[in-house]
Amino acid sequence: MKTLFHYNWMVRDEWYQWCEELTEEELLQKRTGGVGGILHTLFHIIDVEWSWIRILQGKPDFQEKFEEYSTLAKVRELDTQFHQEVEEFIRNWDDSMETNVLQETNADWTGETLTWGEVMCHTLAHEIHHIGQLSVWARELGKKPITANLIGRNLLVRQNNRIIG
Amino acid sequence: MKTLFHYNWMVRDEWYQWCEELTEEELLQKRTGGVGGILHTLFHIIDVEWSWIRILQGKPDFQEKFEEYSTLAKVRELDTQFHQEVEEFIRNWDDSMETNVLQETNADWTGETLTWGEVMCHTLAHEIHHIGQLSVWARELGKKPITANLIGRNLLVRQNNRIIG
Repeated sequence: MKTLFHYNWMVRDEWYQWCEELTEEELLQKRTGGVGGILHTLFHIIDVEWSWIRILQGKPDFQEKFEEYSTLAKVRELDTQFHQEVEEFIRNWDDSMETNVLQETNADWTGETLTWGEVMCHTLAHEIHHIGQLSVWARELGKKPITANLIGRNLLVRQNNRIIG
Repeated sequence: MKTLFHYNWMVRDEWYQWCEELTEEELLQKRTGGVGGILHTLFHIIDVEWSWIRILQGKPDFQEKFEEYSTLAKVRELDTQFHQEVEEFIRNWDDSMETNVLQETNADWTGETLTWGEVMCHTLAHEIHHIGQLSVWARELGKKPITANLIGRNLLVRQNNRIIG
């Protein structure tokens, strides 16, 4: 579980660097599929990750709109702000928490009893799925996407050394 | 870990059903990004999943070419064939196996010591990433993609009841 969060953070950071070579127009350009744009996708990923971690902790959710964060710098800043809390939650995660039942279900998902484990898996899959969409848009722009390989990143070594923040 | 495999199998099965409404031309059409086509992506996913499970078990890898499986029926048949072994491996998985070290590394990944946990995470992320690509191509075809939501699938109930094969 933790490995996949560290993988997501590492890949996301590489996409931010990749985005530095794009114009603002390319970052904001309306595209087919997903939430419809490169920067909006990154905003959506950090919004959803943070929101679920907040919900698990019984804290208020995030309600800001993308329009207020429509530059790469603003999205990265928001990510840095959210990441502290997310990273602490993941650091303190142990697998016994997987079977915890989510008491207050987000309005979108009423009717289903959710475990914390499901919410964590949902959050992980959510990011990887949207990054897959970025990879297609990258090729459509004639650019090489960030590799999705988890292997080849020395992830366990980095994770243990806390190189990944 | 197991939850995400069950999620992948469920989502993949829904994509097969989604593919039934496409023509052979649409399934084989060359597209931008990933491995370059819808059916080829599904073939690639099952190839990679099965290959890594084989490698973990020290068994020979899969070396067939997509051209030999270029119909939806053939891909599904191959999946059914591979799934028996994959499903058994996942069913017998316990988290203590995560730290097992992969002894014979696949030629592509020489130089890095890999744990079984990393290989499993790699396999999971690999499928979700490629499914994200399918979702963009679906929209480009004017069709609604299969939802990537893990929540809303009653996955734990199904998993425990072994509804998912």
